[in-house]
Amino acid sequence: MTTRNDCLALDAADPLARLKDQFSLPDGVIYLDGNSLGAMPKATAARVQQVIAQEWGQDLIKSWNTAGWMDLPSRIGDKIGRLIGARPGEVIVADSTSLNLFKVLSAALRIVKADRPGRTVIVSERSNFPTDLYIAESLAEQYGATLTLVDSAAEIPAHLNDSLAVLMLTEVNYRTGARHDMRAVTAAAQAAGALTVWDLAHSAGAVPVDLNGANADFAIGCGYKYLNGGPGAPAFVWAHPRHADRFWQPLSGWLGHAAPFQFSARYQPAAGIKRYICGTPAILSTAALECGVDTLLAAEPLGGMTALREKSLALTDLFARLAEERCGTLGVTVVSPRDAASRGSQVCLALNDPLTEAGYAVIQALIERGVIGDFRAGDPARLDQVPHILRFGFTPLYVGFADVWDAVEHLHQVLSTEQWRQARFNQKAAVT
Amino acid sequence: MTTRNDCLALDAADPLARLKDQFSLPDGVIYLDGNSLGAMPKATAARVQQVIAQEWGQDLIKSWNTAGWMDLPSRIGDKIGRLIGARPGEVIVADSTSLNLFKVLSAALRIVKADRPGRTVIVSERSNFPTDLYIAESLAEQYGATLTLVDSAAEIPAHLNDSLAVLMLTEVNYRTGARHDMRAVTAAAQAAGALTVWDLAHSAGAVPVDLNGANADFAIGCGYKYLNGGPGAPAFVWAHPRHADRFWQPLSGWLGHAAPFQFSARYQPAAGIKRYICGTPAILSTAALECGVDTLLAAEPLGGMTALREKSLALTDLFARLAEERCGTLGVTVVSPRDAASRGSQVCLALNDPLTEAGYAVIQALIERGVIGDFRAGDPARLDQVPHILRFGFTPLYVGFADVWDAVEHLHQVLSTEQWRQARFNQKAAVT
Repeated sequence: MTTRNDCLALDAADPLARLKDQFSLPDGVIYLDGNSLGAMPKATAARVQQVIAQEWGQDLIKSWNTAGWMDLPSRIGDKIGRLIGARPGEVIVADSTSLNLFKVLSAALRIVKADRPGRTVIVSERSNFPTDLYIAESLAEQYGATLTLVDSAAEIPAHLNDSLAVLMLTEVNYRTGARHDMRAVTAAAQAAGALTVWDLAHSAGAVPVDLNGANADFAIGCGYKYLNGGPGAPAFVWAHPRHADRFWQPLSGWLGHAAPFQFSARYQPAAGIKRYICGTPAILSTAALECGVDTLLAAEPLGGMTALREKSLALTDLFARLAEERCGTLGVTVVSPRDAASRGSQVCLALNDPLTEAGYAVIQALIERGVIGDFRAGDPARLDQVPHILRFGFTPLYVGFADVWDAVEHLHQVLSTEQWRQARFNQKAAVT
Repeated sequence: MTTRNDCLALDAADPLARLKDQFSLPDGVIYLDGNSLGAMPKATAARVQQVIAQEWGQDLIKSWNTAGWMDLPSRIGDKIGRLIGARPGEVIVADSTSLNLFKVLSAALRIVKADRPGRTVIVSERSNFPTDLYIAESLAEQYGATLTLVDSAAEIPAHLNDSLAVLMLTEVNYRTGARHDMRAVTAAAQAAGALTVWDLAHSAGAVPVDLNGANADFAIGCGYKYLNGGPGAPAFVWAHPRHADRFWQPLSGWLGHAAPFQFSARYQPAAGIKRYICGTPAILSTAALECGVDTLLAAEPLGGMTALREKSLALTDLFARLAEERCGTLGVTVVSPRDAASRGSQVCLALNDPLTEAGYAVIQALIERGVIGDFRAGDPARLDQVPHILRFGFTPLYVGFADVWDAVEHLHQVLSTEQWRQARFNQKAAVT
């Protein structure tokens, strides 16, 4: 059985451990919610202060050029590209994940309509993050398409037929952490004549992604989770170069224009991915995102996403194993896939009868002890398939092996002493 | 003739003059570009630092609730509402001006389609800010509508007929500063059976706006100009309550859902204006916006927007008059309307032959002297109607009468000594 000393030894031998120095985390906290809101890089405060006091306060309007504000969406996009298998010039930072999905799904539907008319079905998973489904619902109505939701990944192959327009999936599920095989699923969808749209919200910075290697069609992702960009940080968008210059995306704002400062009355989209920019970027939040992305690029000399993934798998495997070993008899079941290739960087637990409804209280009791995870309610109508879950994200940049051990120890104490019955219910649902 | 001492006396007698203390401006600068990027409030740096270091860094994910991040769009929206004649609960802050225009113009077109089918024309001005035209162009294509652009406001009445679906105007023109009579134009459009969409980018915080008084239908506006929200600050959106609950706007992101934390698979829009929220708000930029809006609310005990407007008109009138008196013989013509009701808070100048092409150099020479205005190129094909302009914004919060006098004195020196021939061409086009 693994001991705390074993974990301390793993931390001492971990070349990635020093990356934690890049972050400011409160004392006494084990932060296992970086899949919801990444931790704060130390560099961010000074950088944003520079943007406010110097670039805005002193240099004012000219900073659009002299401070490179105008180039931030591309500059940070290129940095994110290094994490997701995209080449320079293929990614831009803009707006929110929801809005970027609207852009790429619109573009995908327009391409399919032009190239393969008659394909009118968008397929996704009912368990996908809701905003993706809401955007797809809106676009399905607008384009006269049908949104079909499957209840499990196993049902997807049955929908890969000549009605399929777009297969829209989130690579790593926000609840369970289950991960699709992007390369295989993309190939299968394309073999059926469809396009793929991938949401990398729980992938970018969490698992190695190779968009070009997988020959994906479109991808979008989130800046405030594993990219550590800060609350509500701008999102990113990628289109395969074979698609980027085709059609407008409909959110045709002026900074996506080929020549915005000509102030012409007609829209002429910029070449490539820049047409996916819409309005003026929120510079403070965008500058903060760059600091977050830089914390991941700092791992490049140490093996980059491959090394981070190796540590992530070791952390999540250890947590799942310890949770079962030490808390299994107390009612804990691991819900996330145990197969390494099939999971992201998080582990979800469910509680068995008679603790089925105790999950929220258990998370509160853990938070009171400084172990920050979160709770996601299940589907009351089918708790057997969609149970209440305790969700724990493991960010290898700032979570260590002793943290994992300590988190399970706290969980053990909360359950064995039934401390959760006294937990204060002082936290509403947190943003995913 | 007005002297510099006269202007100093006006400043000494101005009860609004002390509001300038709210801002940090570089020494030796006369900032006449607040219509492009508002100046930096002193409070912003500390507030954003608090968001980063305390709310994000220490309190992490729970700040969505404990620090009120989730309420920011409504809280700041209500504050903006006080500046534009909207009631509490009618305005939210979200995304960019371009995106908010997409939302409201979509909603307007859906309402017209349902209530008055057959109306398929969107009318706007060719001189409207291009992003508005690009968004309208996109939606016209999508909804099978026609976008008709008029060359002057005088042509609008001829288009108020039973084909008109939406009249989409920017109240104050970004180039010339010309201002529409919102109440009269709205009434005329509605009498013709159409809806109105108003862009308040150069109005909110610049002129008194009374959306409910004017019985407008939809409005959007910008956070980074007269609201002093910082570069690329989030924008705002208003829908008249009679429209707010009708239809979805198509950017149906999860935070516009009636119950986002139920994570349901089907979209159910929130009641009222909250359905105009899409994805997760960029909190750093949003928090900064609140500091900017607060600098305007600080004028409320001193007469609010009415008092600010009075000063603004005095500033712009003085500038136009001095520019004509002192620089008229040097080739300067005032392009902005001289009638107070017909102009916003800016004054635009054109240069006569043979200086027609010298405008950019003149602005550069002024910038080198610390007088920050900007240059907007005309339409090469019809410079008589759309000339090159030197654009100067007058923000009564931080511009005084002596500033006006000094700015004209610099302009006089630049022109009389032909200093502009030596100006360094070191600034590319700035963001409007």
